[in-house]
Amino acid sequence: MELKEIYSNAREKMKGYCRVCPECNGIACAGEVPGMGGAGTGASFKSNVEELKKVKLVLRTIHNCKNPDSSFELFGEKLDMPIISAPITGSSFNMGGALSEKEYVDAVMEGSLEAGTVAMTGDTADPSMYITGIEGIKKVNGKGIPIIKPRENSKIIEKIRLAEEINPMAVGVDIDGAGLVTMALKGQPVGPKTVDELKELVKSTKLPFIFKGIMTVEEAEIAVEVGAKAIVVSNHGGRILDHTQGVAKVLPQIADKVKGKITILADGGIRSGIDVFKMLALGADAVLIGRPVIIGAYGGYSKGVETVLTNMKNELIKAMILTGCKDISSIDKTKIVIE
Amino acid sequence: MELKEIYSNAREKMKGYCRVCPECNGIACAGEVPGMGGAGTGASFKSNVEELKKVKLVLRTIHNCKNPDSSFELFGEKLDMPIISAPITGSSFNMGGALSEKEYVDAVMEGSLEAGTVAMTGDTADPSMYITGIEGIKKVNGKGIPIIKPRENSKIIEKIRLAEEINPMAVGVDIDGAGLVTMALKGQPVGPKTVDELKELVKSTKLPFIFKGIMTVEEAEIAVEVGAKAIVVSNHGGRILDHTQGVAKVLPQIADKVKGKITILADGGIRSGIDVFKMLALGADAVLIGRPVIIGAYGGYSKGVETVLTNMKNELIKAMILTGCKDISSIDKTKIVIE
Amino acid sequence: MELKEIYSNAREKMKGYCRVCPECNGIACAGEVPGMGGAGTGASFKSNVEELKKVKLVLRTIHNCKNPDSSFELFGEKLDMPIISAPITGSSFNMGGALSEKEYVDAVMEGSLEAGTVAMTGDTADPSMYITGIEGIKKVNGKGIPIIKPRENSKIIEKIRLAEEINPMAVGVDIDGAGLVTMALKGQPVGPKTVDELKELVKSTKLPFIFKGIMTVEEAEIAVEVGAKAIVVSNHGGRILDHTQGVAKVLPQIADKVKGKITILADGGIRSGIDVFKMLALGADAVLIGRPVIIGAYGGYSKGVETVLTNMKNELIKAMILTGCKDISSIDKTKIVIE
Amino acid sequence: MELKEIYSNAREKMKGYCRVCPECNGIACAGEVPGMGGAGTGASFKSNVEELKKVKLVLRTIHNCKNPDSSFELFGEKLDMPIISAPITGSSFNMGGALSEKEYVDAVMEGSLEAGTVAMTGDTADPSMYITGIEGIKKVNGKGIPIIKPRENSKIIEKIRLAEEINPMAVGVDIDGAGLVTMALKGQPVGPKTVDELKELVKSTKLPFIFKGIMTVEEAEIAVEVGAKAIVVSNHGGRILDHTQGVAKVLPQIADKVKGKITILADGGIRSGIDVFKMLALGADAVLIGRPVIIGAYGGYSKGVETVLTNMKNELIKAMILTGCKDISSIDKTKIVIE
Repeated sequence: MELKEIYSNAREKMKGYCRVCPECNGIACAGEVPGMGGAGTGASFKSNVEELKKVKLVLRTIHNCKNPDSSFELFGEKLDMPIISAPITGSSFNMGGALSEKEYVDAVMEGSLEAGTVAMTGDTADPSMYITGIEGIKKVNGKGIPIIKPRENSKIIEKIRLAEEINPMAVGVDIDGAGLVTMALKGQPVGPKTVDELKELVKSTKLPFIFKGIMTVEEAEIAVEVGAKAIVVSNHGGRILDHTQGVAKVLPQIADKVKGKITILADGGIRSGIDVFKMLALGADAVLIGRPVIIGAYGGYSKGVETVLTNMKNELIKAMILTGCKDISSIDKTKIVIE
Repeated sequence: MELKEIYSNAREKMKGYCRVCPECNGIACAGEVPGMGGAGTGASFKSNVEELKKVKLVLRTIHNCKNPDSSFELFGEKLDMPIISAPITGSSFNMGGALSEKEYVDAVMEGSLEAGTVAMTGDTADPSMYITGIEGIKKVNGKGIPIIKPRENSKIIEKIRLAEEINPMAVGVDIDGAGLVTMALKGQPVGPKTVDELKELVKSTKLPFIFKGIMTVEEAEIAVEVGAKAIVVSNHGGRILDHTQGVAKVLPQIADKVKGKITILADGGIRSGIDVFKMLALGADAVLIGRPVIIGAYGGYSKGVETVLTNMKNELIKAMILTGCKDISSIDKTKIVIE
Repeated sequence: MELKEIYSNAREKMKGYCRVCPECNGIACAGEVPGMGGAGTGASFKSNVEELKKVKLVLRTIHNCKNPDSSFELFGEKLDMPIISAPITGSSFNMGGALSEKEYVDAVMEGSLEAGTVAMTGDTADPSMYITGIEGIKKVNGKGIPIIKPRENSKIIEKIRLAEEINPMAVGVDIDGAGLVTMALKGQPVGPKTVDELKELVKSTKLPFIFKGIMTVEEAEIAVEVGAKAIVVSNHGGRILDHTQGVAKVLPQIADKVKGKITILADGGIRSGIDVFKMLALGADAVLIGRPVIIGAYGGYSKGVETVLTNMKNELIKAMILTGCKDISSIDKTKIVIE
Repeated sequence: MELKEIYSNAREKMKGYCRVCPECNGIACAGEVPGMGGAGTGASFKSNVEELKKVKLVLRTIHNCKNPDSSFELFGEKLDMPIISAPITGSSFNMGGALSEKEYVDAVMEGSLEAGTVAMTGDTADPSMYITGIEGIKKVNGKGIPIIKPRENSKIIEKIRLAEEINPMAVGVDIDGAGLVTMALKGQPVGPKTVDELKELVKSTKLPFIFKGIMTVEEAEIAVEVGAKAIVVSNHGGRILDHTQGVAKVLPQIADKVKGKITILADGGIRSGIDVFKMLALGADAVLIGRPVIIGAYGGYSKGVETVLTNMKNELIKAMILTGCKDISSIDKTKIVIE
């Protein structure tokens, strides 16, 4: 399956929700939440893309890295690439509904696995969608990670119990979901978490715990302190709060303080294997991919997802050849220049 | 009433005066004074918007600010939000006249009150418009503030006397109106003010005095020195002088020197609760809203104004949740990054 | 006569040569030399405009400059404004020829005089055009300044002799014309000048001498050293060499070294009285206006030129009121911020 | 032959491959590889152009450089200009095929010679194209340089032997071709080179050796160390790796370390004699021209190439007059400002 065909299919199926623009940068879809856009003016989405653009790769071809190794180990699981499908729900209201929630989840779980990696699943105001995600992970024998909205702790722990039944790789909370004030209107209140609340969550399970939605050094350090195993440096794809900084801008500061103490994941604006390379060079251990995976799923079901991810892996490997990186741990700040 | 409907109505009613652009940034209406635009090339209007765009919010969700308080006290009056409707006149020549001056004033006074805040009224070459404003404030029992053009002091004091009869919250002069050379042609000369002239004005009344149109530290310090109770950091929405700096650019310098000594209000380019948050973080105690309130009034009379202001308040509260600000005094420069 | 009418007329008469764009910035006419554009990509023209845009005025209205004086003395002649019409030739090949060379020169000379100022005239490959300029200056009793191309010194001195007969205010050479290699093809070679050649020129006449086309501190200092009375900081409106810096960028460095030792004129990208103010604040004693004067002449003959210049004067005066400048010598770098 | 005619012809003949845009900047053709564009988003191509735009020439006309000398000596051969046609293959798949590979090579070799300079030829997955290049150089009596892809050393040395038979000026390898992973699919693997492999190549022939595709100081120093006679600072016209820095950005750092120790050539984004001037001022000894030469060949065969190159030479000479450079070694960093 070719990317061109995937884009063409997705453009057709997501009409009114995603234009599958030549450059996916948050401009055309600004404010479309629900939908595929960023919140408000779309500035946070745009910043994610803009900050990545400022990062330049240092071309080097005098070295012996002829066959780079792109593999990455996450919670004991070896993946073919440091690229994971991001937790996303709401196929109906965010993407137009040409795929059912179940179809979407299955396409992402299977496509990710076929590509040699794994996917996360999400949670939203409609509680059935979390269940759909859990079932999707079950189908791939637990090779996935459910991410839960920052509900009341007791509610989160209920959902962690459900997750534990399918033995996933880890579990997490996207704490930046705190701003989804509309969830309260549907009887599903979410909100900020205190340090003690985070501690209670981490202690509630033996699964590795992930906090998603970290944009400051302080909060990254809290994540380490409360015993989390990973953070996702993320502004929720720009969908939660207008006018935050771009992820690529804050990532190096965070990595500077917590790299090695916790697994650092990052997402926001990653569109190619080159962008993956940039995020790793800025300090991430691996990345999450959101919108391109959606387009893959809508454009070709699991095969579309697989194609999108495999293509990114190949681009990453090519970038490693052309910068002299034999493995992903060699991708560091000496391989880039920030302009 | 929905914002979408308000915008659609306003776009229809303000044809030729305001296009109600997706982004209200001074580009389409450059030079349209009278009208809704900025003076000359519109650079001052654009700078207001551009400088605000450079301010980024620091997303934080590990804290206990679950129900922020957005209230603000102005001259002893408790408002639900640190957001005030700006003094604007000339419904006929600036906005197209689909609303009479009286209808416009009433919509703004009532809509502001319904939203839990208050409005200012203005003054212009046609003296009847100041009276319309005073009458509007009277109808809401003095919950408003008249702002007078920088005429000869004796003329200003006459207008202060008229204001005192309706017992408003305060009174003020927009000293940057000094450049309205066309007012002299209509027998209503305005001009710059010396420090002594400002002192005379402040002493002429027991009402709290506001100087609007301050763009430098020196003039802010003079306002404190002459006994004013508030300043409005403002370039008159970019309508007085082409190519001034944006308000968000000069505000932090001014706040650095006079914060706490005088109430700091600010306006210019504020389009959302996020922008309100930014101005407060840059040092304002509260903000004035101009063009969005006009669009509210033209798009839905008092209900339109109320909707626009309430929406901004809700956006502000959401931004407070997502940055960890329990009340508006917590909104400070640690909550933003200027890029 | 209104500016709107002038623009409309000019747009009609200059079809194919000047579009009279809403913003005159060198984009639409890039490369149109002959014509109205900048050389090559138009980058030098664009830089003139862009650098001026970075200069912001400091709005101040607490002062007593209620009636600023915009007058300026040039070589003993008192002008109503520090604004002079630039030396321009080639009505036929640069502007389309709806006005004859003589009509163009007369419109500019008379319009400038009516507005309370003076004009320069130019020189080109067709020697008759220099004569047309001289005759134009004669008609206004010598209230003008002929500028000669950097031909061989003997040829320049011949032309100075012709000028002396009409007793002009000064005489000058636009030394940046050195790059007009096409003039050699027409038997009118031009080229760079050595310091000794400049000295010979200055000594050849009792008239004040101007060197136009200075873009560096070193060459400004040479102008002082060889006894010139004025320089024009200029990149020839971007028409001589692609990709030079903008005039507003180099002007402060030059003024820093030679201000007070020589009269500093500047041109390039000035479109309004605000732009005039900026150039003065950056260090110029007065400015030359090119394209807007052409548009004035084509849009309304001498009346058009007068209107354009008077409008700029009024904008300058308004800017002086709003920044607290009682006369043009008060317009200095404390009145601006460069962003 | 006029440039306008050449562009018009080329636009017609290259339909679907090159739009011959008014500004050749990598935007319209982003991602078109094969084709004329840059890889991926085209960012590397765009950076080449953008970085050159930041370089400004210092206009100076008080000096005695009235007749500058643009000649340049390369490997003992005197050229009329420091401008060489770049090695390019694939007339069919990159340019649309209106010219056969042979026609293309002949047009470039002959046109370059007519203009007073020489051309390089290339290598690609189809081995016959290297031969076509060699034959083209033979026709101009060895006044050309073949550049070989970074195949296995034994394969490169075979191709060097073929080159030696026609006695070219030099021979080289474009080591940044390492990323052409598709060549392996066609049984023509390429890849990075170790220092020892480079040494073996240089020692394998008595011809001067060139390494093309250097973007770092370290690799430039290795080129010196292994005995190469020239490097080409180049990101392969942005066609190899998306999001590298622009050549004009890295060139000064490289020149700072190796100028004088090795001949520094540079390419990427050069569109005019002004751009040539900039590259020399940034530290290059001479430049390669790619896309404009292709357009010349498609627009007018050898005459088109000659016209394009001669035009650049004339622009370069004019820039030398207007900056005071008597020969190309006078073009240094004092003649430019980087903004």
